[in-house]
Amino acid sequence: MAKDTSNGKEEYIRVPKGTAKGTTLKFPGWYADDSWPGEAHIYKIDKVIFQGKSELQEIMVFESSSHGKVAILDGYIQLTESDEFAYQEMLTHLALCSISNPNKVLLVGGGDGGILREISRHSSIDHIDICEMDKMVIDVYKKFFPNIAVGYEDPRVHVHIMDGIQFISSVPEGTYDAIILDAFDPMGPIADVLADDSFLESVAKALRPGGVLSAPADSFWHKDFVIADTIANCKKIFKGSVNYAWTTVPTYASGVIGFMLCSTEGPTVNFKHPINPLKPGQNGVAKIPPKFYNSEIHAAAFCLPSFVDNGIDP
Amino acid sequence: MAKDTSNGKEEYIRVPKGTAKGTTLKFPGWYADDSWPGEAHIYKIDKVIFQGKSELQEIMVFESSSHGKVAILDGYIQLTESDEFAYQEMLTHLALCSISNPNKVLLVGGGDGGILREISRHSSIDHIDICEMDKMVIDVYKKFFPNIAVGYEDPRVHVHIMDGIQFISSVPEGTYDAIILDAFDPMGPIADVLADDSFLESVAKALRPGGVLSAPADSFWHKDFVIADTIANCKKIFKGSVNYAWTTVPTYASGVIGFMLCSTEGPTVNFKHPINPLKPGQNGVAKIPPKFYNSEIHAAAFCLPSFVDNGIDP
Repeated sequence: MAKDTSNGKEEYIRVPKGTAKGTTLKFPGWYADDSWPGEAHIYKIDKVIFQGKSELQEIMVFESSSHGKVAILDGYIQLTESDEFAYQEMLTHLALCSISNPNKVLLVGGGDGGILREISRHSSIDHIDICEMDKMVIDVYKKFFPNIAVGYEDPRVHVHIMDGIQFISSVPEGTYDAIILDAFDPMGPIADVLADDSFLESVAKALRPGGVLSAPADSFWHKDFVIADTIANCKKIFKGSVNYAWTTVPTYASGVIGFMLCSTEGPTVNFKHPINPLKPGQNGVAKIPPKFYNSEIHAAAFCLPSFVDNGIDP
Repeated sequence: MAKDTSNGKEEYIRVPKGTAKGTTLKFPGWYADDSWPGEAHIYKIDKVIFQGKSELQEIMVFESSSHGKVAILDGYIQLTESDEFAYQEMLTHLALCSISNPNKVLLVGGGDGGILREISRHSSIDHIDICEMDKMVIDVYKKFFPNIAVGYEDPRVHVHIMDGIQFISSVPEGTYDAIILDAFDPMGPIADVLADDSFLESVAKALRPGGVLSAPADSFWHKDFVIADTIANCKKIFKGSVNYAWTTVPTYASGVIGFMLCSTEGPTVNFKHPINPLKPGQNGVAKIPPKFYNSEIHAAAFCLPSFVDNGIDP
């Protein structure tokens, strides 16, 4: 193959070895997301804006050529400005639009504030708890991603800097109408969390009868992800509805992220048919309407390709 | 950053310069798809299986670590074994399941045979024309992708090695119930084709009243793609229904591919509600059921994120 010498120099990026771990800035100039073995998605870095380390993790923020600002946690893409809204809006509203008049909501993780921004659109809510372990995450987002961290400006928000598992087990039974989990890396450990019975049990206990859980789940394109197993495990704990949904997020591996939606025993929840649509003009601290979510795409998110394992509520 | 010396050597890939053109095998060992500037999707090559050049284009086939065999045309990913079915099934059945008893179908391009394999599932059809310019494409797929080229085994298929535009203008008016275009690179020139009035007019003329066209369109995530403009242009020519749909294909840029579905004046076609569902057990030469398509995901494909330009049939 001929050498390209069009600009007099060549650029190289260290290729990840097919390990599961991301490779943050291994070669200056590009970031490689190699969440899935044998392939990687690489992004041109225009400028590194922040690099820091808390007791819990490393954070990097860079301005990319193609996706606005990008936040990297411990080597993994957490979000990009170009498509964060698809994930944040769907994770939030698939749950909150499926129950009437949610009043009290808990967010575990989600320190960036984007889920808070989305919860803020629901005027029926009068109390929002967020439990984030790492204060640095909050500070970094407030400084560099004001359109995401805007969620903290909602006066109904109560911030708890502590471990979510501990927090959940400390609240009285039946406290919340909805719990949203946003604490886990979307590429691997999710399945583990959704297989952790004692954690799921404490989540279910903290929900009222007919209360709902929304959590990220693997892409259905992930070869090692068996949706039927995750559904079966959630059904052991959640005696109401259990459904898998998905949406498109270009900067997550395979371009798809999944969601698990679960409800506790009590008033029936039909996640596939939102009964509490977002009201036009009620945008909370987001100020602008949702960019991605609408009732049509809510229902469509539950339609799955034929190859996907079944075991799903019909 | 610490150097990773875990296996005693490092691997490098030449980073594309943000040009629109793909970079086939620029560094041995990896293929980089850089369809969109500022980012790239890279794939580990286990083995190069074929490299050839016809009068029209270059073809490369490699065995990838993560996506089975991959076919590259002139530097661009044409398909991978791991997800080709999503594209082929949707492009085909979004059209053919929207009209009752399709009888005569034309495929322009699609020399790989995958669309033929999908058309073959429809037992109402008694004549299938395929117009492919490059015989080498057909030969390569027959040799290396038997599960895709299996489409050629359908005895209703008539192969024409010639230019599609020429072929279409030579057929009598109203010849086809459906025309499927699969001749154009999904990352750029599509919009040009869908803006080429004289070509679209010859397609519309070759269709019967209430006949349908299916063609790939850009991803709605493509910043330069204005769906409303493409729809408006198609509506100038197609006086029936004009709709944009989409699906997930992980190895296409942004993980999303779009489709334009258009019908000519005549019996009304409602693309969003398939009236001609695939019949279980009728698999034609494919022998196995569809892996991706079903009636639910057909309807869901027309549900769009809120940010997408409107101008779409309600």
